[in-house]
Amino acid sequence: MTLDASVASRLKRNEDGLVAAIIQHDDTKKVLMLGWMDDEALSRTLTEGRVTFWSRSRQEYWRKGDTSGHYQWVKSVEIDCDGDALLIAVDQVGAACHTGKTSCFDEGGPLQCISRENR
Amino acid sequence: MTLDASVASRLKRNEDGLVAAIIQHDDTKKVLMLGWMDDEALSRTLTEGRVTFWSRSRQEYWRKGDTSGHYQWVKSVEIDCDGDALLIAVDQVGAACHTGKTSCFDEGGPLQCISRENR
Repeated sequence: MTLDASVASRLKRNEDGLVAAIIQHDDTKKVLMLGWMDDEALSRTLTEGRVTFWSRSRQEYWRKGDTSGHYQWVKSVEIDCDGDALLIAVDQVGAACHTGKTSCFDEGGPLQCISRENR
Repeated sequence: MTLDASVASRLKRNEDGLVAAIIQHDDTKKVLMLGWMDDEALSRTLTEGRVTFWSRSRQEYWRKGDTSGHYQWVKSVEIDCDGDALLIAVDQVGAACHTGKTSCFDEGGPLQCISRENR
């Protein structure tokens, strides 16, 4: 599947041909995960209505939900000012994280940090 | 500045020693930008109360707001399930994007995509 040329020309891919894709729940605005896409994965995501990533660890396409049932239905896709990151709003079915948590950022709990309030 | 060992041990850095950092506005939940951090940048971010990135293009530390006045005050920092991405909630002063837009994802407008509603 060929990515539309007008989109492809705006992408600034890393040395592996990938751009980062931030997945955000459209309703709750919770950030669910960060994945990676090559042109093919982005093309599938834009045209199929479900999010497809490139899995760097498995070196294969990974359409979210095919094994887990935890589909990510695409609501909108935005590209950032320098073309190396995508923000994808989704309707998330079930948990986004393979650990069963709603978000991949729920797993470890917050890191200890200084904020303006407690400095 | 040395990153706390309990945090450093959880990071899965890329070949350049970096992890991705998603910046989200704490109030509006808007995703503002994606930056990159090495151990030093994360350590400064956790201890100074303001976000510091590693700039891949300039190859230098970049404390957001030092030149623009558009500070990012840290509210919380979370790490994802596999340790290669951070989610940082901030109070953003002014525009997050160097283009003057609120978010770096506001610049180009949404890409055309098929969603469940219009398939």
